[in-house]
This record gives sequence, structure tokens and C-alpha cells, in this order.
Amino acid sequence: MAAEASASRPADLTAAAARRSIEEGRLSSEELVRDCLARIRDLEPQVQAWTFLDEDHALAQAKAADERRREGHATGPLHGIPVGVKDIIDTGDMPTENGSPLYAGRTPREDAAVVAKLRAAGAVILGKTVTTECAYFHPGKTRNPHNLEHTPGGSSSGSAAAVAAGMVPLALGTQTNGSVIRPAAFCGAFGFKPSHGLVPRTGILQLSRTLDHVGVMARSIDDVALAMETLAGWDAGDPDTRPAARVPFAAIAAEEPPIRPLLAFIKTPHWDRVDAEAKEAFGELVEALGDAIEEIDLFPSADEAWDWQKTIMEAEMAHNFAREWRDGRDKLSDRLRALIERGREVKAVDYQRAVSLIWPMQESFEELFTQRFDAILTPSAPGAAPKGIDATGDPRFCTLWTLAGLPALSMPLLRGSNGMPIGVQLVGRRHFDARLLRTARWLAEKLG
Amino acid sequence: MAAEASASRPADLTAAAARRSIEEGRLSSEELVRDCLARIRDLEPQVQAWTFLDEDHALAQAKAADERRREGHATGPLHGIPVGVKDIIDTGDMPTENGSPLYAGRTPREDAAVVAKLRAAGAVILGKTVTTECAYFHPGKTRNPHNLEHTPGGSSSGSAAAVAAGMVPLALGTQTNGSVIRPAAFCGAFGFKPSHGLVPRTGILQLSRTLDHVGVMARSIDDVALAMETLAGWDAGDPDTRPAARVPFAAIAAEEPPIRPLLAFIKTPHWDRVDAEAKEAFGELVEALGDAIEEIDLFPSADEAWDWQKTIMEAEMAHNFAREWRDGRDKLSDRLRALIERGREVKAVDYQRAVSLIWPMQESFEELFTQRFDAILTPSAPGAAPKGIDATGDPRFCTLWTLAGLPALSMPLLRGSNGMPIGVQLVGRRHFDARLLRTARWLAEKLG
Repeated sequence: MAAEASASRPADLTAAAARRSIEEGRLSSEELVRDCLARIRDLEPQVQAWTFLDEDHALAQAKAADERRREGHATGPLHGIPVGVKDIIDTGDMPTENGSPLYAGRTPREDAAVVAKLRAAGAVILGKTVTTECAYFHPGKTRNPHNLEHTPGGSSSGSAAAVAAGMVPLALGTQTNGSVIRPAAFCGAFGFKPSHGLVPRTGILQLSRTLDHVGVMARSIDDVALAMETLAGWDAGDPDTRPAARVPFAAIAAEEPPIRPLLAFIKTPHWDRVDAEAKEAFGELVEALGDAIEEIDLFPSADEAWDWQKTIMEAEMAHNFAREWRDGRDKLSDRLRALIERGREVKAVDYQRAVSLIWPMQESFEELFTQRFDAILTPSAPGAAPKGIDATGDPRFCTLWTLAGLPALSMPLLRGSNGMPIGVQLVGRRHFDARLLRTARWLAEKLG
Repeated sequence: MAAEASASRPADLTAAAARRSIEEGRLSSEELVRDCLARIRDLEPQVQAWTFLDEDHALAQAKAADERRREGHATGPLHGIPVGVKDIIDTGDMPTENGSPLYAGRTPREDAAVVAKLRAAGAVILGKTVTTECAYFHPGKTRNPHNLEHTPGGSSSGSAAAVAAGMVPLALGTQTNGSVIRPAAFCGAFGFKPSHGLVPRTGILQLSRTLDHVGVMARSIDDVALAMETLAGWDAGDPDTRPAARVPFAAIAAEEPPIRPLLAFIKTPHWDRVDAEAKEAFGELVEALGDAIEEIDLFPSADEAWDWQKTIMEAEMAHNFAREWRDGRDKLSDRLRALIERGREVKAVDYQRAVSLIWPMQESFEELFTQRFDAILTPSAPGAAPKGIDATGDPRFCTLWTLAGLPALSMPLLRGSNGMPIGVQLVGRRHFDARLLRTARWLAEKLG
């Protein structure tokens, strides 16, 4: 609502606000897209969030949306709203190059399932956003819009930077370790990684079936909920999705919690990595929340989860990149090549053991959520975006929740002394994604 | 029907015939079970099919079934019918020792899902049947009822021998490679291995989630269908089962095929292993079937399937037997220990590659079944049961169908010159198990 009131131009509107304006005829999709393109023209030379953007093609989609509305056709929940799409997500009308020279010039024949869902909801696919090399660590060209000398985080670098810079209200990202939450936190956007299996990954570069998630970047919780209504669902191409009733994310996220939520503050075994400024900021946050938050320790076996995630990610990436390793090893970064080489040495027994430990860990989290807590509050990253653009920062504060497949939201609630955003991560019960958004909204309102 | 007419005593009745007699009050469960126990007392010293059998406990179940019927309670589809249960399948009221000294004296707290289903259908759990060591190769004590100097096959040795010897009309087995089809063929029983995921494996010693199946031994196709109506279904403890509508197996198996079936005769790349006598018998069978069968070659990639199965089975067994290997290596047979040691060396990339090749292979079989053929006809084993009880014979004619998760039925349609049965294996389209039984019945009737 704040964004809507203060919006001096269409590109600053949230998706929900823009949608209302379009619905009521106060704004056209063309005007919105033109303003986003103008913002991009201004900032892209510095931020470099996009890897493919064809202004004419974007405008043609917007005009077609306006035309359909004028003709009185039914409009979808994202009618005329521009969305950025991470460049490991297939688009049938734009290149999808996976951030790697191995895929230069590749244009898929078909849209990924999530892109098809966005189009069916009326969205304008604005362009493709920068990813790190194959969504692993080697950075793309994107810079942090808050300070160009700092990393935007990765691997969904362009999506986070584009949303935070006001270039587009929504963008898709993906996360196998910390690739939605971390760049959202570093760039000051809302970044949501849903429960594993809630959003289909069909038509997206596969790193790890066990760990890959599709997520969304936005500038408000309402916009996250709005996007999730379109993205969630079963797809025949993703064996980890389930047929399930449609969840009214926006309505649930907008509800008042029936009783006041109780949060668990979890520092994780890696708290010593958090920088002094972030430690202080979290200390003040916890104090401000008073008896609505309790600090708890993780169950002891969780300490090993970082090793399990490493084993699974390395083994599954080595499997999924077998062709790239065989035919194009020389075109891979040293870091990705080294990961694949490690992954090729993982024993099947160690891999299976790591996978088999996920379920007992999920059961432990189930207990925590059903017996006492509405959500876990924890850092999104060890601090604000570090200086330098040769690395994308540390994903370890996302690892555990990714491995357990729990829904996680990074909220730009804190700031460092240099003005850079510090993300607060809220983690919810598995498959209770909409309730996590409701708790997040309560938290955001409580903190003003 | 033939069995019913010629039955000189209750133990010789098929389950379907016994059920009708019990329903009509011409036979009590107690009479049936007493006669099975009498047959066991006669033959068990030679055949040695049972690892646990408590006559009083079996009779108590039978009397309780008769009592329920007398009191007018509803009766289940297997009311009063005795069933043998392979000793890797948990029973809450009898030991389950997995054919290994590591499990001596183990009595589980709960029934396996399939045992609970049998009890709910009214069955009498007669006792536990001999398995090879942990359902792998090291033989148990069982001998082939047709000739005690020959192997009964394995690993479901006791279940096949007990059914073939007339000790019990139905018995449960399991198959990870050829452990239902091969002993059924060697002992001259019908052995059915359903589609992967059709029958839940909850509460059964796990060798390999990818390859493990529960199957059934019987003396008629009707009895296979009768048992399947009870055994098939979803279970929360087995992630490979699916909620699905109940299939009327018996009704479908009893139908006339709407058009005359066409069979594919597949020799597999291992035909040179088939002995001369079996080759001749299959030659005559194919000739007798005339234009109802066509010999076809497998698609070339199927040649590698035996290697994939080995990789998967060794890697998954090494994972599932990690505790046995760590704590009780000295109590394992050399052969099982060697398998685990090989499995511990399998690379995660090779394991994942093997698993990833199953689906394309299944698609190739889908084509074969949807475009032309109703079922595949192929040997159950390289010939009749080999002489000697130190080994259980060669599973390689089952490997491909187990890996692909296709339903397979061994039928005792042929005999060697020494009078030993030779199994004919009929393989069907995945998830079309009842139709396979219908085709099998047509084949059995055609061959008279």
C-alpha cells in the first residue's frame, strides 16, 4: 500500500497495485511496460540485470494484453504485468543460455512450465535476467543496485537486482542452495523459495532434483502471494509436484493470524560467520519482538545437514552435467569444473545416505512447527552484500531450509550502516507456504 | 475349475474354490487349515519350505474365522484361506528372520502392510516360508518338491515350494531381480510379480527401493487375481505406491479378450544361455501359437539393462545393508558380503545414470505395447530347475522386466524330459496388470 501511495511512476507500482490500475482502466499494460523499459534504459548500463531484452517484443505482448482487455475478453490474475525470467528457465520466444558459453545462442522450442503458467495468467515476459554460470557460483555481469561495487548475490542475480532497481515488479529465480534468498537479501527485495515440489521445474536447467526450487522476487509480500497463485501446481514433467487443491495465497497472506504468531529465532551452527553489524541488528530485532520470539537451538543432527547438502548437490550436479563435462569441460569455470570433479567421486552409498536423512530431518521440523512455533526467524546471509563482484557471497544460511524443502522468505527489514539491505529470513512449515506469507505480513506490520 | 473338480482333499483346492466352499458352508476354514497342516506334516521333512509354523496359532486363526462366519459377520474375499508369507515380510505375531543369523529371534511389532491387508481380507497367516539369506543368493534349506536334488529357485524358495507341493494355496514372495518368477517356474507354480509400486512394501526388508516388488505364488491365474485384489493399493509407508481406483482383478482376468491377443516372443540377448531342451519346448510353443505370436528383437539400448540393474541393485543394497555390514559382516555369506563391498564402491554418478535410464526404457516398452502387442512371451529361466541345492539358479531372464517395473507372470506350461516344470513368462504393459492376467488366461486356455 505504501508503494502504491508513493508511486510517482508506473514502474514503481507493485504488481498488485498495477493490476488494480489496469483492471480499472487507469493504466495500460503498454504504459507500464514502457515505463519499465525506460527505467531499464536508465539503470541497465550500471546494474546489468538483463541478458536478453527485446523492447519491441515486450511492447507487442503488452499491446496484445491491452487489446484483449479492450475487446472484453477475460483477463488473468497477472494481466499485462511484466515479469523477468532467470536465464536458466526456458522461453520459447527468447534465448535461454544458462549463463554459460556452452549454451550461447540456444533458444528452446518450448516454454518452461512456469513461463507457460505466467503467459496463461496474462503476464508479459519482459526479458531474461542474468544468472551465474549454470546457476552455480561463477558470477554474471550484474551489480548490486544499492552500490555497484557490491555483489548482487547469486545465482538469481539479475532477477533480484531488476526487481530491487524498479525495472520490473516480479521476476522468477531458482534456488538449489541459497540462490533466491541470498540475492533478494543483498539487493533488498522480497525473495520467496516455496516448499519443494510446490512449483514445477519442467523446462528449467536441472542441477539437482532433490534440491532445485523455483522462487520469486517481488517488492511486497502481496506480490509474492499473487505470483504464487499462478506458479504453484502439478506438472506431469516434474515428478516431485503433486496434484493438490488451488491455494488462495493472496487471501491467506492478507488474513490476520487467528492467534498471535510465535517465532523461533535460530542462529544455526554458523552464527560465528555473521558479521558484527548484522549480529547487532538481529539482536535489536529479537528484542523488539519481545515474547513473540524465543531463541532455540537446532536438534543436534541438523549440524551435519550442510555436509549432506554438499554430497547431494555435488553428486546430482555431476550427474546432470555429465554431457557438459564430457563435451565442453574447457568452457566451464574452474569452480564448476572442480565441483563436477568432486561430484563424480561421490560414492553411491554416501549419496543415498544423505538423501535418506532428509526425511527424518523434515519430521523434526514438523514437530517444531506443530508443537510450538509458527515460523523460524534466521538471517538470510551472514550480513549485507559483501564488497566485490568476483563472488556472490555465502549461501550457508539458506542450505538447511533448502535441503529440508521448507518454504523460506527473505524480507528487506534491516539495513547496515552503509545503507545496504540486510535480509531477515522467515522459514515455515513444509506445504504451509501461504501461512508463512501470513506470518511474514504480520511481522512486517509489527515492525512498522 | 479343473482343480476344483479333481480335488480329492481340501489342501488341493485353489483359493478361489476353497473360498466358494467356505462361503457355501461345505468346508470350514478349520478343515482346510487342518488338511494343509497334514500335508505339511507329510512333506515338510523333505521339502523344508517353512521357517516358522505354529499349528495351534494357525488353527486358532481358522477357528476364529469360522466363528465370525457362524455369527453372521461380513466375511472378506480371503475369508478362512491360509496364506504363506516369505520370511522377509514382517508379521507381528511370528518371527521374521530374513534368512540370516543376524536376525535370529527377531519378532517385529507390526505386520507388514500386505500382511495387514491379508488379515483384513480374512486370510489365515499360516506361517513363514523360507527365504534365501536376505532375499539374495545364499540358499535356505528348501528343496524342489518335484525332485529333492534340484533347487527350488530363490529367493522366494519356500513360498514357491509350499504352493507347488499343495501345502498352502497362496503365498507371498518378493522380487528384486528374479525372486518370484524363477522359483515359481522351477517349482511349477504360477508366480506373479506386479507392476512396480502396485503392492506396498512397507514392513518388508528393503533391498532396493527401485527394484523391490511384492509378488504372489498360486496354483491358478484366478488365485493370482484373487490375491491381487487384496494386495494392491496405496500405503503411506511406500512412496512408490499411488492412490488409485480399486481394480477388479478377478473380473478382468476372467473376461474374454475383446480381440484376439497378439504376443511378442522375445528371446533377449541371453538366449544362448537357454538349454537345448527349453529352446525346443519354446520352439514348439511358438509354432503352436501360429499367427498369435511374432518374434521380435529388443531395442538395442535394452542390451545394457542388465548392467544398469546390477549397478542399481548393488548400490542400493550396499546402502540398505550399511548397518549389517558395519556391525555383522562376519555373519553374512561370502556372496552377500562381496555384493555389499562392490556396492560400496559404486559411484553416485553411475548409480544415478542407471536409474535415469529406466524411464526411457519404459517409454520404449510403452510403444511396443500400445502399438502392437498385448504381452511379451519369454522364458522364466534358462530351463528347468538345475540339479543341486547350493545355488538357486539364474535370474537373468527376469532382470529386464524387474528393472522396467513391468508386470510379469510365470506359468507352468512346459515340462522337461525329466518331468521338471519349465516356466513360460508373460510380461505386460506397466500398470495394466489385470489385463496381463486376462491375456495369460487366454493363453492357458488356448494351449489347453
